[in-house]
Amino acid sequence: MTEVAAPRRGRITPEREAELYGAVLDLLREVGYDSLTMDTVAARTRSSKATLYRQWGGKAELVARAMRHHKPGSIADVDTGSLRGDFDALLSQENDAALEEMSALMRALAMAMHHNPDLRRAFRELLIEPELDEFNRVLRRAVDRGEVRADNSALDYVPHMMLGAMITCAVIEDRPPTQAFFRTYLDAVVLPALGV
Amino acid sequence: MTEVAAPRRGRITPEREAELYGAVLDLLREVGYDSLTMDTVAARTRSSKATLYRQWGGKAELVARAMRHHKPGSIADVDTGSLRGDFDALLSQENDAALEEMSALMRALAMAMHHNPDLRRAFRELLIEPELDEFNRVLRRAVDRGEVRADNSALDYVPHMMLGAMITCAVIEDRPPTQAFFRTYLDAVVLPALGV
Repeated sequence: MTEVAAPRRGRITPEREAELYGAVLDLLREVGYDSLTMDTVAARTRSSKATLYRQWGGKAELVARAMRHHKPGSIADVDTGSLRGDFDALLSQENDAALEEMSALMRALAMAMHHNPDLRRAFRELLIEPELDEFNRVLRRAVDRGEVRADNSALDYVPHMMLGAMITCAVIEDRPPTQAFFRTYLDAVVLPALGV
Repeated sequence: MTEVAAPRRGRITPEREAELYGAVLDLLREVGYDSLTMDTVAARTRSSKATLYRQWGGKAELVARAMRHHKPGSIADVDTGSLRGDFDALLSQENDAALEEMSALMRALAMAMHHNPDLRRAFRELLIEPELDEFNRVLRRAVDRGEVRADNSALDYVPHMMLGAMITCAVIEDRPPTQAFFRTYLDAVVLPALGV
């Protein structure tokens, strides 16, 4: 697999970039990934298509970078001294409106990812893998502190548990996931599976 | 919420019903829920639209019943004497091809459910709730046997863990879920969270 090209920033201001990503996510919610075209993005944001392709390479990268930009906070900054504390700090960076929006966007992309290898690749490289790396740093610190055994087999499945809870909450409970839902789920499932 | 009407069976043979559900799932994979129309289903299955509406009430019910019909096996019949044994018997009813197909269909429906309250309702009533009831019977027996404490808070989240693993395996690991994946996940996450 070739690597996703880094966007050539510096040609547009951070404000303009944020505005553009916001428009991409609006369009994604309105029409879905398959019907989203670079033409529509160009029209909605009053950009030229040439600029969009030069800066982002294609639709898949543009959508993945828009999702990543939209994700509030970063677990990289979190180091409270306990795994429960780290998860708690991570959750506090989100708010219920952002969680609901992210859950809706993930559902909007779930089918498109199935049919579009480009989107799957961009999504993995720009969103999933950096997130997994950060999760793994948090978990490795918990192992180093002796909170979690190094051979605990649930360590490999923390992303499945968290992302799975976000997606299934909406389907099973017919309501978007909230901070409160995630806190209960962490205490009921994730920490016990890790033996904490 | 009004209840989803029971389909008026008896007018078509079980073979014809199975053939019709198969055609609905084929169309769902080909064009997605939003582009699926009762006209296309009627044309593909050489039925009259009037028959389809009379038997199923509408597109949402038809799709949910097709999904339910397609689900192999039933956890209702399973009672091995241990929770691990029950989960194992349940998994053995599936095969990898069926799991991959179900995972693809779930992703195909995830976005449509967000936009279609009718589909969400039919899906909940015809698929999620019966499945939750059966899961709860299996879990209640484990509680009655003393395998799981009655106040274990992970009891409420077994469907989230299982359905979440099915959906996220494809996204996080870029491969469809298999029996082997579910067995590892059960041992690493679900049973430890339940204290088994």
